[in-house]
Amino acid sequence: MPQLSNSLDHPLRPFFDPRGIALVGARHSLGFGYGIPLYLQKQGWGNRLFLVNPAGGELHGHPVYTRVQDVPDPVDLAIVIVPAKAVLQVLQEVGERGITRVIIESAGFAETGEEGKALQAEVRTLAVRLGMRVIGPNCVGVVNTANRFASVELLDESLTPGPLAIIAQSGVFGNILLDRLPHCGLAISKAVTLGNRLDVDETEILEYLQDDPLTRVIVLYLEGAAHGRRLRAVLPQVTAQKPVLILKSGRTPIGRQATASHTGSLSGEDALYSALFQQTGAVRADSLSQLIDLARVFTTQPRPRGNRLGIITTSGSLGALAADTAESSGLKVPPLSQQTVVEARDLAPDWMNVKNPLDLGPSGHFPRLLPLILSDPNVDMVLAVMAIPYVAVKSLRTVGIGVKEWFGDIEAVRRQTPEKPLAVAVVGHPELVEEITALAGPSIPVFTTPEPAARALAALWDYGKRRG
Amino acid sequence: MPQLSNSLDHPLRPFFDPRGIALVGARHSLGFGYGIPLYLQKQGWGNRLFLVNPAGGELHGHPVYTRVQDVPDPVDLAIVIVPAKAVLQVLQEVGERGITRVIIESAGFAETGEEGKALQAEVRTLAVRLGMRVIGPNCVGVVNTANRFASVELLDESLTPGPLAIIAQSGVFGNILLDRLPHCGLAISKAVTLGNRLDVDETEILEYLQDDPLTRVIVLYLEGAAHGRRLRAVLPQVTAQKPVLILKSGRTPIGRQATASHTGSLSGEDALYSALFQQTGAVRADSLSQLIDLARVFTTQPRPRGNRLGIITTSGSLGALAADTAESSGLKVPPLSQQTVVEARDLAPDWMNVKNPLDLGPSGHFPRLLPLILSDPNVDMVLAVMAIPYVAVKSLRTVGIGVKEWFGDIEAVRRQTPEKPLAVAVVGHPELVEEITALAGPSIPVFTTPEPAARALAALWDYGKRRG
Repeated sequence: MPQLSNSLDHPLRPFFDPRGIALVGARHSLGFGYGIPLYLQKQGWGNRLFLVNPAGGELHGHPVYTRVQDVPDPVDLAIVIVPAKAVLQVLQEVGERGITRVIIESAGFAETGEEGKALQAEVRTLAVRLGMRVIGPNCVGVVNTANRFASVELLDESLTPGPLAIIAQSGVFGNILLDRLPHCGLAISKAVTLGNRLDVDETEILEYLQDDPLTRVIVLYLEGAAHGRRLRAVLPQVTAQKPVLILKSGRTPIGRQATASHTGSLSGEDALYSALFQQTGAVRADSLSQLIDLARVFTTQPRPRGNRLGIITTSGSLGALAADTAESSGLKVPPLSQQTVVEARDLAPDWMNVKNPLDLGPSGHFPRLLPLILSDPNVDMVLAVMAIPYVAVKSLRTVGIGVKEWFGDIEAVRRQTPEKPLAVAVVGHPELVEEITALAGPSIPVFTTPEPAARALAALWDYGKRRG
Repeated sequence: MPQLSNSLDHPLRPFFDPRGIALVGARHSLGFGYGIPLYLQKQGWGNRLFLVNPAGGELHGHPVYTRVQDVPDPVDLAIVIVPAKAVLQVLQEVGERGITRVIIESAGFAETGEEGKALQAEVRTLAVRLGMRVIGPNCVGVVNTANRFASVELLDESLTPGPLAIIAQSGVFGNILLDRLPHCGLAISKAVTLGNRLDVDETEILEYLQDDPLTRVIVLYLEGAAHGRRLRAVLPQVTAQKPVLILKSGRTPIGRQATASHTGSLSGEDALYSALFQQTGAVRADSLSQLIDLARVFTTQPRPRGNRLGIITTSGSLGALAADTAESSGLKVPPLSQQTVVEARDLAPDWMNVKNPLDLGPSGHFPRLLPLILSDPNVDMVLAVMAIPYVAVKSLRTVGIGVKEWFGDIEAVRRQTPEKPLAVAVVGHPELVEEITALAGPSIPVFTTPEPAARALAALWDYGKRRG
């Protein structure tokens, strides 16, 4: 059985691995208060879940306690989903019940303006007085795929355990990422949305995830650091252990205004963040799609020993585009070793230029030349560009040649040379993309254009180099 | 009946609209020579297609002529798919038959080295002597969706007529784009792959497409200009008529080497190309995926009157990312007009900040607020970000609320305000992306992250501004 979480006495542990949960704000009408109990029941948490609502009664076959004080032991986490104006009172009761870990999902605090800010400050003061640790408000809390615990309703597919941890501010954003990532080949260890960060912030979560044995890569969406100085102090320790991929909004004045009214974040000057990330070994993504690209490469590929990229391609144009991007992102596309050239020359038809990028055209030699270039001592990683007109795929199929025969057993090639990063780019018909994705298997990221693959490999090299 | 092509006496017309075709190199074994005749027959060209192969006999029910000379009238285009070493002889015979338009698809010329270069020079000399116009060699020639003529086998779906013309150098690249684009909402007017450009080059095709009534946007993949001076002279005329979107490889020395051995192209200094494109009103894409993004926006959206972008979003995070990208790409994200603020304030719940970006959260007011922001006089174009957790979609569905009820009839909104560009970004579950894509209809491009949408809208504004 894998270790589900960090040491038992870590202060954040009850958020991810509670012994019992009080859900304050359980409701009979549609919404969080209705869906979450049903969801946790379905995930096997029914006997550790206690519902609270002054109306009492029963919900999904569970008794609804009218007061938090009545909830039986053991319970070490409260999830609060009552309207903002009721939060202070609820918090008081949660404290009286002796619960010291609280996720406040309710919105209507600092993100709404001055009145909300004042209310949030009151909540904060009360939480401190009660000795509570709080995630939120204005969030959807946590997900832990190892024990299928989540303080938010999710699709089952989002609970497939994997190596990627997510830290976001907004609940919607965290939630839609969890919808999307399983379809990008990414599976999750833990996820946290922090909302307005009244107490627990990204730095503390980073520290927690640094020691989480189930997390190998961390993705952080940030609108502004809660405490820049602490983030600067902690990031180098975390990035020395595992990659931290960061997407930060608020790059422009208008973007900063947008985040201010969203999670009450103060973004600050963007150049300072870029410098901070660079100095602390974090990897900054310049867009949401790049963040996903990076996560796909960082979770599946080993660290390269150098920056020399081999490109093998069935399209000279796509090979040239990949080479351009690689070179301008800090990689080298070096000449192949003498031995590779000799062996490839031996296989190749006369018209083929044996060089890097290696453009095979329609030669059909992919299955033999991919292993050759991957094992070349002059090459630290490989980008394999597979592009073939779909009429050719169909035509080859009529004579018994499938994509596996044409391109080779890519998954087996991966296993034979596990120490070098390998990424695939396939351009063309969606069915070809599907077939190649199946052929590559879960341990090779497949991209639908060459440039993002080259950029992600360059970032992987850069991370390893800075880590030393 | 639409006009299928340009004036009857345009020298390139027979390439796109031949009265009869001689296919030299028809074969019984799998490959181009086997597939193309079958394909043209299927597209309705059987009675205008004449097959030639010294072996004679019959293929797909057609007689195979042993000599080009024997092919009956009318025939004004030859497609040559014989091995490189046979091309000179074939060209001589084609010339004797009086055919003056030739597509040479055979590879094995300048792209293979010195010997191939010499052969290509010989072919060129002969073609000039015979008064021929030649596309190729090392290409797959032309596609004209209006009359379903193509010198290359394609999927039926690639022949759906549309406003986008494609010029590429490599045949594989052109072909895989034609596989892919129909699945990105892009339909084609004409496509040409030029290969080694022994004669006809991109400049001449651009001139031809400039007057093509069925082409509204042109996409050009370029490894290097055949004649920089001519390209510089012609581009401004073309871009004054319709947008020209260019993806150029060979940005780096290694990329230039790659193109040299691919289509024999000399790329030259990249900065010179950037300047040339900028000065001539062309739009340069920095990646293949951006090229596709631009094509989707340019083929569907009107030119904006100004650079003021309204952003409406269900996720504050995604709104901030969109705002950042818009501002750093040359757009403004201005305050909404007083009237819009008053009307929106009237609808909105208390917690909603009525501003730009307009973050609706889970308010459910998308159907009323999208038309409001789109018609705001302070706004020249709109990016609508639709992100909603898929569990919420499912939950809403149980009470009879589908995405159309939640987000509104986006297609109808588009029709009501046709003069302003509108793009959609949807992040989340693939099924949500599908539903929103259906909801948006063919006249609104849907993106799966916000940044590329903002960038494409910025490019649309920039093109219009430079065009004046």
